[in-house]
Amino acid sequence: MQSVYVAGVAITKFGKDPRTLSEIFCDAARSALGNAESPEVDAIYIGTMNPEEFTGDSNIASLIADAIGLGGVPAVRIETASSAGAAALMAGFQAIASGYYRRVLVLAGEKMTHLSTSATTRILAEVIDRRERQCGATMPALAAMITEKYRQKFRLSESRLQNILCQVALKNHANGARNPMAQFQRAITREAYFASKFVATPLRLYDCSPITDGAAGVILTSEKTDVHLAGVGQGTGPLGLQDRDTFTSFAATKIAAARAYRMAETSPQAIDFAEVHDAFTPFEIINSEDLGFFPPGKAGEAVLDGKTALDGKLPINPSGGLKARGHPVGASGLAQVVEVVKRLRGAGVSKREFKRGLTQSIGGLAANNFVTILQRADAPVVQNLWPPNGAPIARPQKVSAAPAREIEEGIIETFTILYVTPDGFLPPLALALIRALDGRLVMAQGEDETELKIGQEVFLRRVDGVWLFTVKSQLQKVQEAFMKLFQRKAVATAKDNRSGEPK
Amino acid sequence: MQSVYVAGVAITKFGKDPRTLSEIFCDAARSALGNAESPEVDAIYIGTMNPEEFTGDSNIASLIADAIGLGGVPAVRIETASSAGAAALMAGFQAIASGYYRRVLVLAGEKMTHLSTSATTRILAEVIDRRERQCGATMPALAAMITEKYRQKFRLSESRLQNILCQVALKNHANGARNPMAQFQRAITREAYFASKFVATPLRLYDCSPITDGAAGVILTSEKTDVHLAGVGQGTGPLGLQDRDTFTSFAATKIAAARAYRMAETSPQAIDFAEVHDAFTPFEIINSEDLGFFPPGKAGEAVLDGKTALDGKLPINPSGGLKARGHPVGASGLAQVVEVVKRLRGAGVSKREFKRGLTQSIGGLAANNFVTILQRADAPVVQNLWPPNGAPIARPQKVSAAPAREIEEGIIETFTILYVTPDGFLPPLALALIRALDGRLVMAQGEDETELKIGQEVFLRRVDGVWLFTVKSQLQKVQEAFMKLFQRKAVATAKDNRSGEPK
Repeated sequence: MQSVYVAGVAITKFGKDPRTLSEIFCDAARSALGNAESPEVDAIYIGTMNPEEFTGDSNIASLIADAIGLGGVPAVRIETASSAGAAALMAGFQAIASGYYRRVLVLAGEKMTHLSTSATTRILAEVIDRRERQCGATMPALAAMITEKYRQKFRLSESRLQNILCQVALKNHANGARNPMAQFQRAITREAYFASKFVATPLRLYDCSPITDGAAGVILTSEKTDVHLAGVGQGTGPLGLQDRDTFTSFAATKIAAARAYRMAETSPQAIDFAEVHDAFTPFEIINSEDLGFFPPGKAGEAVLDGKTALDGKLPINPSGGLKARGHPVGASGLAQVVEVVKRLRGAGVSKREFKRGLTQSIGGLAANNFVTILQRADAPVVQNLWPPNGAPIARPQKVSAAPAREIEEGIIETFTILYVTPDGFLPPLALALIRALDGRLVMAQGEDETELKIGQEVFLRRVDGVWLFTVKSQLQKVQEAFMKLFQRKAVATAKDNRSGEPK
Repeated sequence: MQSVYVAGVAITKFGKDPRTLSEIFCDAARSALGNAESPEVDAIYIGTMNPEEFTGDSNIASLIADAIGLGGVPAVRIETASSAGAAALMAGFQAIASGYYRRVLVLAGEKMTHLSTSATTRILAEVIDRRERQCGATMPALAAMITEKYRQKFRLSESRLQNILCQVALKNHANGARNPMAQFQRAITREAYFASKFVATPLRLYDCSPITDGAAGVILTSEKTDVHLAGVGQGTGPLGLQDRDTFTSFAATKIAAARAYRMAETSPQAIDFAEVHDAFTPFEIINSEDLGFFPPGKAGEAVLDGKTALDGKLPINPSGGLKARGHPVGASGLAQVVEVVKRLRGAGVSKREFKRGLTQSIGGLAANNFVTILQRADAPVVQNLWPPNGAPIARPQKVSAAPAREIEEGIIETFTILYVTPDGFLPPLALALIRALDGRLVMAQGEDETELKIGQEVFLRRVDGVWLFTVKSQLQKVQEAFMKLFQRKAVATAKDNRSGEPK
């Protein structure tokens, strides 16, 4: 396989950008081409999530090639929802690794801030499983449900969890304050974090990445440069939360990471720093564990101990991450790569040299994830196995693809109370993943948002294709127990009667 | 470079399909996987143009991987407007050629028939340059303007052109009648063709491909099979018609063809049959010339002579083409490949064996085109140069990217009268590409649809950002000539006066 290297990289100032999507793309393209030695490329790979709906731009590959002044040059649009930028990089990698092209321009961008928050939320929510969307689930709602499950699984108190998430936000905003291309270039205080409103319990506004415009550009080449694209990997996972067998880690990341580590012949221990997909602060925690940086349930402690801070043992999101740099959805996966390359080339104030960096990008609700490993030519060779036992990562098993039939009761697997609802749903909206007695999961809307707790028993009914749940009261539970006792007695009496009948 | 081969191929019955887009994709995937020896693949490449707007499906790669039951397997969506299926094939090719994957599933599909024709036309028109769209230009309108220019350039009479286009339609419908997967499985008559209404002069309804649902699937592998993916190539061109320096051939096809022929070490003379992008009948003519099958201006004669018929020297669109097989936009580029592979494997009644086939796919208004060459293991080696002089194809030069300033007059470069207009425009709508005196081109709407002719002089004015033109009358021309004469005399008089002044 032909080795692939990084030449020029570029990123636009993230935030509210008054220019058109095409102009933002051109800016990133020209800067990336200008940084490189020669402005000629064999092809263009463009990652973008949904310009059709965000800006009304179709046929974006031809449009951008034409706008840059590279008409004639092959141009392709690549999309995997919010990891589109990483997907474009991987497509560009494969094109050069094959020997078919020698030098390609990878671009990724999105323009979102010109729309209302509700319009943007609606477009972003289209990546969610249809059944879950119909209940009113948004990306923050699903992330919140995953977080609540994480808290329960690893037995964290509510305040411990909040401290961990707060620390992620504080760290990333502090890092963003040092990044001139970041959307938010100011540190936030603990008080500000705790004063920020809940979007979906337990996630506050400061746990969520912002709405952003921006683009990034990377030139990949077969000619040796100072930065080697050492490993790439991709994995997918079930679209719906209700089809998953685990909620506190993402199968798609584990598959992608195993592939990238194997290709780079390295392991988590040899990574100097990482840019991971912190669209929500808890995702940074889960991702750090899925990538093998910390054991399951231990990443929160590492954050609180400062291990992932800028001067820690393993800086995570030194650029500010999606949280502070901003999250133009299709751009983020490539923006992470630009940030890593810049740091490998010496950008940013740091006591020590970084030789090997990793990026991890999430598509949709962690259904299409990528891991990329970049290293300097002088990075030490580390031939570790990952995963440690060398076993391949198993594909996630879909819990149940069968349409839910009549389910009358179940228990709460996880839940959230959504305060920022999509159009057509009034806040506060209780949403829960309910496990039926036969083990199947359904996403349901609460008829009441009080008394929610993982493990709580609920009644279910279906109205207009949407599942609704109500928490069983203590009285109902006593009545049920009494009914069961009565039925058992009635059955016993019937049996006695039958046994008394002549045969 | 690792050689790439074709294993299983599949196509759904094209036409109006009551199933969801996901179900149609799954059908093609399962059939392709079933035809192959092993159901395992390393990755999935999905070509689709605009499921976001056609069916409201975002995050389509994760959705389809999950729906097929291949959750975990890397899946990517590839898009280049209406050539997305060919683009997905090329991405899959590069992934295997690099050695990164060994076996991939390439899918392409679109669902369109559930929407109204006006809604579909609007979504399809989004691939057009914004300035041209604002004038009311649709894909048939632009194709018609290209056709009118072709007629003028090659000095064809109106009836000669109509006979050529009619013959393409008759041939492709006759071929479609033999294809059980085609949308239209019936031959049409010359009378029916000439009775069909004009969509955009000189194009009739029977010159345009239909609105279709459908999907195709292809398994690519590094293991040797009976069909070798011998050559692939891609090229782009200016998005807008008004930015082009030529209208009667497509630069994007020529670039793609040169690349594919070079990779396959072959030339047009060695191609046994081809599936080309006949979204409009004149495109089959132009494409056949761009691919080097016939000299410029000569493809029409070849069609009339039967050279491209099923029993001709070079059958073109033996499957029925987009015209009769149907055109689910994102699927067509891959459907062509499936048809070629089937024929190479002996499908279809034919007097002779086909050993080498070619496909050509167009994205948008021929702004993003692909050429693919497939051959049997026993295809004779032909090492011809293409283009004949071996010179690389020059990138198309954009005529003028500068915003049009005040232009008051010009001449008609080409025109059409549009009878099926997009929402907000009343038929008949005259559209013309006007060449200003300084050489710049603008797309303009006619204030009157009579007296249109290439070369006709017009006045231009701009209202609400849209150019409007009116044809100069004979009287106006005489007045202008008189004014010029008068001005010249006035200037001469002034000069005389000046020369008489003391220095």
